[in-house]
Amino acid sequence: MNPQLSISRRTRSTPFTSRVQAAGVSAYTIYNHMLLATMFESYEADYWHLCEHVQVWDVSCERQVAIEGPDANKLVQLMTPRDLTKAKIGRCFYLPLCDVDGSVINDPIAIKIATDQWWLSVADSDVVLWAKGLATGMRLDVKVYEPDIWPLAVQGPKAEKLMSRVFGNQVKDIGFFQIKPLDYHAQAGTFSMQVARSGWSKQGGFEIYVNDIQAGQQLWDELFSKGADLQVRAGCPNIIERLESSLLSLGNDMGYDTTPMEAGLDQYVDLDANIESLSLPALRSHIPSKRLMGLIIDSHANISDNSLTIEGKTVGEIRSHGYSPRYGVHLAIVLCHLEPLGDKQQVDIVTNDGMQQGRLCNLPFDFNALGLKAIKQRG
Amino acid sequence: MNPQLSISRRTRSTPFTSRVQAAGVSAYTIYNHMLLATMFESYEADYWHLCEHVQVWDVSCERQVAIEGPDANKLVQLMTPRDLTKAKIGRCFYLPLCDVDGSVINDPIAIKIATDQWWLSVADSDVVLWAKGLATGMRLDVKVYEPDIWPLAVQGPKAEKLMSRVFGNQVKDIGFFQIKPLDYHAQAGTFSMQVARSGWSKQGGFEIYVNDIQAGQQLWDELFSKGADLQVRAGCPNIIERLESSLLSLGNDMGYDTTPMEAGLDQYVDLDANIESLSLPALRSHIPSKRLMGLIIDSHANISDNSLTIEGKTVGEIRSHGYSPRYGVHLAIVLCHLEPLGDKQQVDIVTNDGMQQGRLCNLPFDFNALGLKAIKQRG
Repeated sequence: MNPQLSISRRTRSTPFTSRVQAAGVSAYTIYNHMLLATMFESYEADYWHLCEHVQVWDVSCERQVAIEGPDANKLVQLMTPRDLTKAKIGRCFYLPLCDVDGSVINDPIAIKIATDQWWLSVADSDVVLWAKGLATGMRLDVKVYEPDIWPLAVQGPKAEKLMSRVFGNQVKDIGFFQIKPLDYHAQAGTFSMQVARSGWSKQGGFEIYVNDIQAGQQLWDELFSKGADLQVRAGCPNIIERLESSLLSLGNDMGYDTTPMEAGLDQYVDLDANIESLSLPALRSHIPSKRLMGLIIDSHANISDNSLTIEGKTVGEIRSHGYSPRYGVHLAIVLCHLEPLGDKQQVDIVTNDGMQQGRLCNLPFDFNALGLKAIKQRG
Repeated sequence: MNPQLSISRRTRSTPFTSRVQAAGVSAYTIYNHMLLATMFESYEADYWHLCEHVQVWDVSCERQVAIEGPDANKLVQLMTPRDLTKAKIGRCFYLPLCDVDGSVINDPIAIKIATDQWWLSVADSDVVLWAKGLATGMRLDVKVYEPDIWPLAVQGPKAEKLMSRVFGNQVKDIGFFQIKPLDYHAQAGTFSMQVARSGWSKQGGFEIYVNDIQAGQQLWDELFSKGADLQVRAGCPNIIERLESSLLSLGNDMGYDTTPMEAGLDQYVDLDANIESLSLPALRSHIPSKRLMGLIIDSHANISDNSLTIEGKTVGEIRSHGYSPRYGVHLAIVLCHLEPLGDKQQVDIVTNDGMQQGRLCNLPFDFNALGLKAIKQRG
């Protein structure tokens, strides 16, 4: 059994914590100094439910870093090598944020809220300090702060049905990675909340940027009362689903020790763009020495050492892993060292049951191309 | 029972984690994206042991932010309102770090390692991003990074005895908040490690800035083998001890919402100094509206709401609290709103056993002046 988590004011609770507890959370992590559930019933039971029904996730830990003012666009562009010149209001952008060496500092969803206003919905590092440090040092005319916003994610194939019962059919008009302010009619009045079609799963769904504690709690309760027949449950980002969907996790898969290209995020780096970005000069001349890849082990693996080896020589390391009950294989995201690896694809992994073999592949996992068929379709 | 903690690569393990587990850790927190034990046997048993014997703490989560180069002194001074003009090599300084508004961003122990080299031993926020952001924005000639250093604390009244058995009598010459490089003779060779007389307790002791994994593990084992007769145990920062000692915790007691003066750190702010500090202009004109204070409830209190009230009106909030078995009272660190509070000292607290009264006092707690006598001297 894992040790318990000590909860204090520093590991902030959220407006939904009492509801998450009542729903039977069994494990947490701390993310952006805040509680994030990681498991309710079991990773596998949570997974099948997410793939079949609809879940409400307390992802308050997706802290918003608001950047507002005349220099807001300039600052956001400085922080990322992705070209935002043509960014439109009401759109979401997956952005690698990098320092002057090209190292990944965070990978938020950036939302263009208004002409001079961005929200960065950040992964687990204090982007507010990075952005404020740059703004202070460069004397930019911007305000940088963490507003009181607690995102709720509604995820799963029945998410749209549930959301339309609460917000009306207008949610159906929100395209993928689009965001719209929608009215939520709470007891205390009407609140305008940003609603995006997004979320950290590939089962479809929305994220609601809750901006009032009481209205948010009423919204949570309404999602559950109106979703009873849809088998709605409290959930959370699920390790099995995110591995199958090849969703990267900052701090687990990549971070200060990787460039976006080494993390396979090439499509979010505009090397040829004529933009003012802190990291582009370094990224243009950087020669990747490692690369994130997928790894498949054809059975359940009790991995006891994160090294990948070939004939005893280390060629990489496992960064995240878990068993896929759908495909009957163990999946991992691994960081490979390009020089010793070459074009080899078979690697050795140390497990509690002895040495096992795995095969490397590109990300995202393409189960068809890999010849893997679902051995189980539901829980 | 509390939920479990999910441990992943993102919530970094340390070179000592397997030893902490073997020693029977029962609860963790996450601090600077890293595991930090919070309890072994029980808060109270851990407390009495710390006060009577000696403990070895894995405080690897006290990440070092190294600032090196010609502009190192300039950058560190910019970040803090404390005058460092006369700082000498080999000394440690408790520093509030503040932004241009005067808000507390962190409160590290800063160590002047060499003429142009500082280590900030930081509390729980990504100071590396703040410092890098400023350095990048101001084009300072410094290198800012987190070196591979994992501090071990040796704390308790027998700490000096144990340390001198491992490092020799030279440890006795290290004064409070002084630091010296000492040789540690490991199997793989001799390692020079910085050793300071410091630590997050008031029971006396040292912090060893371990810079090699294997040598550090050997050091851990040697501290235990040479300390058996001293009843050495694995330990961790203890909530009871730190409350009695009035040691503040970033994120619990103060943070972005407080200035150093509001946190009672006036002695670390040199308002009249002729230094280049980002926060001094704001701090010089800031009028505090709140203040950290102590609170004493004359019995064990099952606090169920963090509000402090007087006749139903909120005058502050509880930020950290715990029962002191030594004095038989419940202690809290509270943030009071100066305007509604005035000079009143009696406040109401909601507990699971009904409303209880508490009395406010200045920090640090002065148990003699408060008329409190120890009702128990050992566990």
